[in-house]
Amino acid sequence: MDRVYNFSAGPSMLPLEVLEKAQKELLNYNGCGSSVLEMSHRSKPFEAIVNNAEATLRRIMHIPDEYAVLFLQGGASLQFSMVPMNLTAQGATTAYAVTGQFAKKAWEEGARWGNAVAVTNGKIDNFAAIPAVTPELIPQDAAYLHITGNNTVYGTAYNTLPDTGSVPLVADWSSAILGKVIDVKKHALIYAGAQKNMGPAGLTVVILRKELLERTLDPIVPTMLQYAIHADKGSMYNTPPCFSIYMAGLVFEWVEKNGGVEAMEQRNAARAAALYKALESCDHFRPLAAKKDRSIMNVTFTLDTPEMTAEFLAMAQGRGLTSLKGYRTVGGCRASLYNGMPDEGVAALIDCICAFEIGKRT
Amino acid sequence: MDRVYNFSAGPSMLPLEVLEKAQKELLNYNGCGSSVLEMSHRSKPFEAIVNNAEATLRRIMHIPDEYAVLFLQGGASLQFSMVPMNLTAQGATTAYAVTGQFAKKAWEEGARWGNAVAVTNGKIDNFAAIPAVTPELIPQDAAYLHITGNNTVYGTAYNTLPDTGSVPLVADWSSAILGKVIDVKKHALIYAGAQKNMGPAGLTVVILRKELLERTLDPIVPTMLQYAIHADKGSMYNTPPCFSIYMAGLVFEWVEKNGGVEAMEQRNAARAAALYKALESCDHFRPLAAKKDRSIMNVTFTLDTPEMTAEFLAMAQGRGLTSLKGYRTVGGCRASLYNGMPDEGVAALIDCICAFEIGKRT
Repeated sequence: MDRVYNFSAGPSMLPLEVLEKAQKELLNYNGCGSSVLEMSHRSKPFEAIVNNAEATLRRIMHIPDEYAVLFLQGGASLQFSMVPMNLTAQGATTAYAVTGQFAKKAWEEGARWGNAVAVTNGKIDNFAAIPAVTPELIPQDAAYLHITGNNTVYGTAYNTLPDTGSVPLVADWSSAILGKVIDVKKHALIYAGAQKNMGPAGLTVVILRKELLERTLDPIVPTMLQYAIHADKGSMYNTPPCFSIYMAGLVFEWVEKNGGVEAMEQRNAARAAALYKALESCDHFRPLAAKKDRSIMNVTFTLDTPEMTAEFLAMAQGRGLTSLKGYRTVGGCRASLYNGMPDEGVAALIDCICAFEIGKRT
Repeated sequence: MDRVYNFSAGPSMLPLEVLEKAQKELLNYNGCGSSVLEMSHRSKPFEAIVNNAEATLRRIMHIPDEYAVLFLQGGASLQFSMVPMNLTAQGATTAYAVTGQFAKKAWEEGARWGNAVAVTNGKIDNFAAIPAVTPELIPQDAAYLHITGNNTVYGTAYNTLPDTGSVPLVADWSSAILGKVIDVKKHALIYAGAQKNMGPAGLTVVILRKELLERTLDPIVPTMLQYAIHADKGSMYNTPPCFSIYMAGLVFEWVEKNGGVEAMEQRNAARAAALYKALESCDHFRPLAAKKDRSIMNVTFTLDTPEMTAEFLAMAQGRGLTSLKGYRTVGGCRASLYNGMPDEGVAALIDCICAFEIGKRT
């Protein structure tokens, strides 16, 4: 089988050009005699790889100098704990906007460490919309408000950042980072797993205000969970996930070459709009997310019945459109349109939707 | 430059055959239409990859059914914290044999959580030997004795396991796993970073007695640091480091095809012996580790003066023998002879040592 259009919510498609470059230099990187898979993280070539990756990311995200950039392991799931452990004392108050599956997990982990208050909880609408957050809802003594910028499972997103008043904003941008413009300056801390828009799984990017590194931490916090240690050691306190950093660096360069995050957002917004329009023009398809809160990265929809959904998924699979099944607790379908998805993939999905709809009408 | 012989302590050389296979299927794994770098960890092909990797590892290490095998992130450094958090209550007594740099770090992290007692401390000899551990040295109420099986920095190893009496043995085998036979049954828990004998960086393997998963943990322990969660979810609680698991699986198969860990040990012991013999037969070279405690994975040595060491390192570099510089706190040289190092690389190093020695004699 040729390469398929993989609509997985992550890990997800990487640009073919990036994969081809990685393939070409897999046995011998840049003539240095070793693969990136086997070179010491203390070697000159790897030092250049990690420095370039950080510099490119800083350019494409316009990250100000007063923010540190860390390349870590453990995914967003480990950040759920690192954020409270690094930003607060045990028992301190923190605030969480619970807008989905992963937002809820972040809140629950926050509650292991402190007094984590859920300021909104979208569960009543089955997370189909993003409840408004206003400064009045946030406890004034909260160390931060945590949001999940884009909810992969439900296909919703903060299309404008909430007004947190004087409370610092912490955001999990795993499924939208590099896919749309994020104003770093409005955040105290941003984190994201790489496996959607940035590269393969196994790498987590954390961007945080340097002043947050100066806190004295509870001695119980493991060294590996301390941002300040990783910042001080340039993400090399221990052996980093070298190959994932290298791949992410190639993706960062690809984004820059293709017009930067601004161009990515424009392209992603246009094709998500085309897909939503196709779904809305059909009788048998229905988008799941509230219109104002729709994500441009993950488009969730359903058909009339679970049987019809299964029929559609089988048809799509037959056309090389894979991983379109919705999250297990939601059902229906989900099309993740990350940067690595070619335009042809989105067009093929829209074709498939139209063909299915026409088949049902006749 | 052609591929070099890279003697790095890790990440380190992978078998060329493994790299070539990975290169061949990098754009399209097994005809499924996606790269392993971009496929969903919930997909059928990846499920097969992770199941095969575990099954092969169980065969080559003869891991009994009553042990769980976990594929995690964070390296040995995160295990330093996960071990005490999962095996003891806060404040409980644990025992550590401090035989080197990483053993010391494990002890220090243990002390963040509990009463971590150093039962031996090799620092007085600059860690050149492994002090004997006897049951009398270990506090009877210790939840475990932690050892670092192979000390990468100092080139020492436990060539026989210590007698711990009734205290469970926990071992960091990062730099010898698959390089020599480890009797799993004698351990309560084994952990190892992948980046020496198993694959690229970004993967940590944990092997532990299943009964250890039944403890009720302190609620402060982050979900991501709980062995039981990862065991229950088949190492898929969150997105695992997919590509590193795939590469490790290829390495496990390569080990099996080449006679298993028993054959690896035989080969590694023979070539380490040849290297030690060459060093001992020279006037200007001197092995650093005490003879009885020498590692067959990391051979540490020095020359008469730092200048002579630098001269030798430059000569080796010119012959395509790289990353031979000793750890920064030790100096001298270190040759790591992991499974991925071809015999020709060890022969070339011995040749280089002899040529340097002869050059100095004439």
